[in-house]
This record gives sequence, structure tokens and C-alpha cells, in this order.
Amino acid sequence: MTDRPNLRVDGDRLWATLMETARFGATEKGGVRRLTLSPEDGAVRDWFRAACEAAGMRVSVDTLGNMFALRPGRDMAKPPLGFGSHLDTQPTGGKFDGILGTLAALEVVRTLNEAGIETEVPLCVCNWTNEEGSRFVPALMGSLAHVGDFTVEDILSRTDAAGITAGAALEAIGYRGAMPVGTQAFGGFVELHIEQGPLLEAEGTTIGVVERGQGIVWYDGRITGFESHAGSTPMHLRRDALAALSELVLAVEGLAVEHGPDAVGTVGEAAIATPSRNVIPGAIAFSAEFRSPDATILETLERGLAAKIAEIAARRRVEIALDPVWRKAPTAFDPGVVAAVRGAAQALGLSHRPIVSGAAHDAFSLAAIVPAAMIFVPCKDGVSHNELESAEKSDCAAGADVLLHTVLALAGGRAP
Amino acid sequence: MTDRPNLRVDGDRLWATLMETARFGATEKGGVRRLTLSPEDGAVRDWFRAACEAAGMRVSVDTLGNMFALRPGRDMAKPPLGFGSHLDTQPTGGKFDGILGTLAALEVVRTLNEAGIETEVPLCVCNWTNEEGSRFVPALMGSLAHVGDFTVEDILSRTDAAGITAGAALEAIGYRGAMPVGTQAFGGFVELHIEQGPLLEAEGTTIGVVERGQGIVWYDGRITGFESHAGSTPMHLRRDALAALSELVLAVEGLAVEHGPDAVGTVGEAAIATPSRNVIPGAIAFSAEFRSPDATILETLERGLAAKIAEIAARRRVEIALDPVWRKAPTAFDPGVVAAVRGAAQALGLSHRPIVSGAAHDAFSLAAIVPAAMIFVPCKDGVSHNELESAEKSDCAAGADVLLHTVLALAGGRAP
Repeated sequence: MTDRPNLRVDGDRLWATLMETARFGATEKGGVRRLTLSPEDGAVRDWFRAACEAAGMRVSVDTLGNMFALRPGRDMAKPPLGFGSHLDTQPTGGKFDGILGTLAALEVVRTLNEAGIETEVPLCVCNWTNEEGSRFVPALMGSLAHVGDFTVEDILSRTDAAGITAGAALEAIGYRGAMPVGTQAFGGFVELHIEQGPLLEAEGTTIGVVERGQGIVWYDGRITGFESHAGSTPMHLRRDALAALSELVLAVEGLAVEHGPDAVGTVGEAAIATPSRNVIPGAIAFSAEFRSPDATILETLERGLAAKIAEIAARRRVEIALDPVWRKAPTAFDPGVVAAVRGAAQALGLSHRPIVSGAAHDAFSLAAIVPAAMIFVPCKDGVSHNELESAEKSDCAAGADVLLHTVLALAGGRAP
Repeated sequence: MTDRPNLRVDGDRLWATLMETARFGATEKGGVRRLTLSPEDGAVRDWFRAACEAAGMRVSVDTLGNMFALRPGRDMAKPPLGFGSHLDTQPTGGKFDGILGTLAALEVVRTLNEAGIETEVPLCVCNWTNEEGSRFVPALMGSLAHVGDFTVEDILSRTDAAGITAGAALEAIGYRGAMPVGTQAFGGFVELHIEQGPLLEAEGTTIGVVERGQGIVWYDGRITGFESHAGSTPMHLRRDALAALSELVLAVEGLAVEHGPDAVGTVGEAAIATPSRNVIPGAIAFSAEFRSPDATILETLERGLAAKIAEIAARRRVEIALDPVWRKAPTAFDPGVVAAVRGAAQALGLSHRPIVSGAAHDAFSLAAIVPAAMIFVPCKDGVSHNELESAEKSDCAAGADVLLHTVLALAGGRAP
């Protein structure tokens, strides 16, 4: 623990910033639609930059729009401790996913400023570009490019459904910065996030000490059958792409259930090429994914799906292409940073438990190059990626307090 | 048979008109995309009107764009014999579906003109608006309104996916005519069409004498589950709309197979409300249909699907709405007109067989008010509603010859 054990963030102020930023992309149902690099994303970035500057930080933007707000430390020769998350949302997202971690980092700096605390190592509040991956693939785009998993040229050329490149979208909102990607150094990274699952709420636990993250494989797929007349093509002569997809969807679901409880599998996108009510669907594009914290199970799921697809394709006389577009091995977070999170929760007297992250986060990317860990707080009914996503004000404040004391422990009198 | 047993249409000229009109909406793959009331439909209508007028006919257009080209008969007090089909296509349609029947009717008139034959009763070549039903619902729109199944006001207010009304679309191409719908009288109706199924080709039979038509039910449906994060929502807590749809698609297929061989069932459209690869689908709109020539089987299929939907909805904790948007009872064609078709095929020495129509046609609508029947010719691999749709020139000519002699038998010396 630090020498300021009674220090707390201002939970009311943190909540007010969450509600204030929820205006950018607000939906009728109380959610947020703030696709990465959209005008709404540009607006919240402008707000965030101004707030960071008002808190005395200098903001740099790299060529992929990743934002770094630096608070000086006593020893400027040391690489800063990074913390933060992302400000973009899903097409029908909520007010907390990513945003809580970014604004809590800002709140930690405001609290340190008011308490007159200077840390030993500098601090760096981060907003990573396109964590969500719903407008541009891959997800975690900014942080993965930062750690070298993708080249900047590759990322800039990625296109959205309308054919707009990431590069053009960055320029359109004025966030194609000058700082070369990957040059912001870190001594460590901590990310606060809502759980996006039901465990903490169900158990009445306030803090999840994230020890591991699920491995992920994302696929793009396409089924090619044969379009023909729905009225006059007998059942046994059909090559129905939608019927084939239906078996595939149920196979993904069945495989995940079979390898539970931690494994999950989802088909999130499916679009018939030329839909018409009296034409048998001839071609469908779809996405699929599996996640598991266990690399062996992940491989088993992938092999199982490949076998099932071969069987479906042969029996139904359709072609099924399935291309992995992203693979992320399971993440094991740094024992030292995990211990700092656990220690902060303990010292604050908050209930806590070890947990596995089902979703991917920017901290997964950073864990590949620096000691990293995450802090989870409960969200209502475990719901996320949904306009109904909600979290308690007291839980948000508790998570920010754990972040504050984790930062003090890692960057305080003792360097991380 | 008539007193001109050796009269034949000009098969080369018929083929040339098929290829010429295929320019209007031609696709790269050799098909036709000529959605009803589109600019392409307007262009082919202009071509068709000019060709009819050049063949000495007077063309009337009703307020729904149905086109009637009248060739006088000796007894103008008698209602004309109608024949023809439609010129619109599916989004990825072919050169023959509907078009063959319309252009063959024109070819019959050209043949009669050249042979100097005046029929007893007048003839009326028809092009019916929106047979396909893929831009505006219902299919058979023009002919169903003609027989009184829908009001003109209702049809004019129907909208396409872009929100354009049928009325506005008619005006845009100049085919909102002055003639009140339903006022063109008929003494009978005959329609030549490609089979759109595999039977004739597989058996090596040239002419299908269509005795019955399948009953049809069309549904619009919607599944409402719950959007949540694909990574952190455990399998047993999901309410996945796409997984529910997948079971429904396979249930539609399974019910049709179970009640074969004539019954068919199809889900042709399915659209996830806000697709994202890492979000569990929360809402899906879809269409479904069943067809059978047997009214009892059609009812059994409908009851079976309703029961299956109740089971899926309860088990998966999703809502499934299924609304019938169109029902058409099985059609029994007029024995007299069917006999005229059979007699023409016999007299021409063409192989023929009785057949059930799997697809709906404008002749189904007309059969409700006048004696009607249909003539089928083979199409390649039974394929239709597809850019690969194809038919042999000799089969098209044979079908037009049967149409010619059916018309002569019904409208010739002897009135229908």
C-alpha cells in the first residue's frame, strides 16, 4: 500500500464525466453509438483532449489516432506507467464499455492533482483507437499496431462497409497524428473495465482481479450454394446456403457448450447476397468466433468446426470457405501487476476474486510487451455491447479507487 | 384442332426478341436484373408497346401499369381471349421467366398476321405488373388486383425497401395508366412459361400441361432475443436470435421434406438488425414460405411450424413473431382450357405430360374469374430465379406453337 491509504477518487465527478460523454453518439434507448473514427468519436476525443490538458497533461496523438496524455513524474528517465482504455463503442453499445477505464484514468490524475501528489515515474493516460472492431477489423487495432502485431500501412488501408479506409477516417476527424506508432514507451499498463459478464454481480463481489484473458479466433466465412426458385425446386435438389449456415451456427454453439464452461462460440454477422422471399439463398457471408482461456481447447474447437463444415458442405453440395482473420493466444497477466491490483482491493476493504476475461481488451495487447493487468467491476445483468449496459456509480468509484491505489503502488515511491 | 394444322410460329424471330429484350437490365453473368417499375422495366415496356402497335394492336395501360394489347376479332361483342405473362424479373433473374410467355404471345399475333388469320373472338396480349414480388409485396400484384384480391389504393401505397411507393414508381416510368383496374374483360386466359423445375428436362418431355398450381403461404417474421457481448456471455445465458432462426430454418426444411414430394418450404430473407462480429445477434427479420398443391398438407405445414416456433421460443427465451402476409389456395385449372392445351400438343406431335406448377403465376390469379390454364416448357437444370436460367430455342418455339394452336382452338372458328 501507499503512504496515502485514505485517498479516494471523487465518485460523483467520475459519474458526471461518464454521463457527459454519453452525449456523443447517444441513442434513443439510452445507449451510445460511437463507431471508431466517426464524427461522434471525433467529438468525444476533442472533449477528452481538452479535459486532459485542463488537468495539466500534454496530449500526443500517433498516426493511428492513439492518444497519450502525459503527467510528469519525479524521474523522467523512467518510462511512464500507462493506464486507460478506449472511447469507441459498438453500433448499439453502452455508456461504460471502455469509457469507464479511460475516464477513471482521468479521474485518478485529477485526484492526484488535488492531493498534490507527484509520482516517482511519469503517468500516461491512454485512449486506444478502434478497440471494438465493428467498423474496421481487427479489434484492438490501435493497441495491436502499437505492439507491432500489425503494420501501420496495413491498418491505414483497412476499409469499413462503405469502403472508407481507416486512414481517410482518421483524417476526416483530425486524428491522424504526427507521433510514430509504437514510440510511446511504457513501464507497465493497468486497465479498469466493466466485467461484461455476469459473475461479479451474481456473487455480490465488487472487484475482479483479472489473472487471465481468453484466447480468441475470428473467422470470415462464405457459403456458396445455388440460387433457384423457391416454389419449383424440390427439396432434395436444393443447395440452400441459409440452411447450410443454420447447421453451421448450431455447430458453433454446440461445440462451445461441449467444451464449457469457459469456452464460447458465436456467429455475429450473416448476410444473404441477394435476398428475395421466393428465391433459395445462393450465397451468404458470415463471421464466426471462438474464445477460451485454454489454448488446447481453442485448437479443439477450431478442429471440430473444420470437420463439421466439411461434413455439411459435402452433404449439402455447397462450398464453405472459412478464413481466420485474427488469432489471439490466451493471455496470462503479469503476477506483479496482478498482485498490485489485489493488494489495492484488499487495502481498500473491497470484496474481490480472481477472474478470467471473456472479452479481449487493449491490456491484452500491452501484456505482450510490458507487465500488465486489469481490474473488473460488475455490470448490470452481465450485459454489454448493448444499449442497456449499466453499472452502479458506487462500483465505478470502487474500481477507480483500486486503479488509483494500483497506480500509486506501481508508480509511487516505489517504481513499477 | 384448327383448320390450319401446319401453321407454326417463327422460332428464330421469337428467340431474337428474347435476346433483344434481355438487354434491358442485362447483368455481367448473362442474367437480367429488371425489378418491377424500375427504369429497366420502363424501357422494356416501351419496347413491348412499340412492338405490339407495330403488330397492329391497340395498347391500353391500367392504373397499376398492367398492359393490354388488343387484336380485334370477328365478333367484337365477345370478351377477348387473354394470353401473356410478365416482363419483370428477380434481382438476379434470367432471360425467360415471364418474358417467354409475353413475347410468345406477341409472336403468336405476328404469326396470325402473316397468315392472314382473323379469330372469332378478339385476342388480348397481356403484360402483368410485378409478378415477381421481390421489390413490392405481394407477388402477382397486377393480376391479383385485376381479379379483386387487393384494392388499387392498397397496392399503390405499398413501399419498396427504399420507401418508394408503387404509385410513385409507376409515375416515375410513365406507366400509371388511365384505364381502371379490372375493367379489361376476358373470356379465358392461357400462359406459356418455363417450368422453373427439373421434371420435363429430366424426362425428356417437351410440353407440360399444367393441371394444378400449388397453394402458397408467405410469412414475415421477427425474432427478438438479446444483444450481448460475444466474449463474456456464457453459452447458457444467451438469447441468440440467429441460433433461434437457425433452428427455424431447419424446421421449415424438415417439415417440407416430411410432407413431400410436392411440398416445399423456404426461408429466403434473413437480416440481423445490427450485425457485429463480437455481438450476439439480438434481433432478426426474416421471410418464410410453404407451398403444396394439397390444401390439407399446407395446413399441416402451417400448424407444424407454429408448434415448432413455440417450442424454440420457450426453450431459447426469445420472442418469435410470424405473420402470414399472403395466402393463395391451391389452383385447379379449367378442364376445357387444359384439354385445349393437351390437344394442341398432341396435334403437334410433341411429347407432353400433366404437371403441377410449383411457382405461382398470373394465370393463377385469372383462374379465379375465367377459364384458364398454362403451358410449361423445360428449362436447363430446372434452374430459375437465377442468372444462369436458360431454355432451348427449340423448346421455346414448341411452347409458342402449342400456345398458337391453343389460342386458335379457343378463339378460332369456335369461341372459347
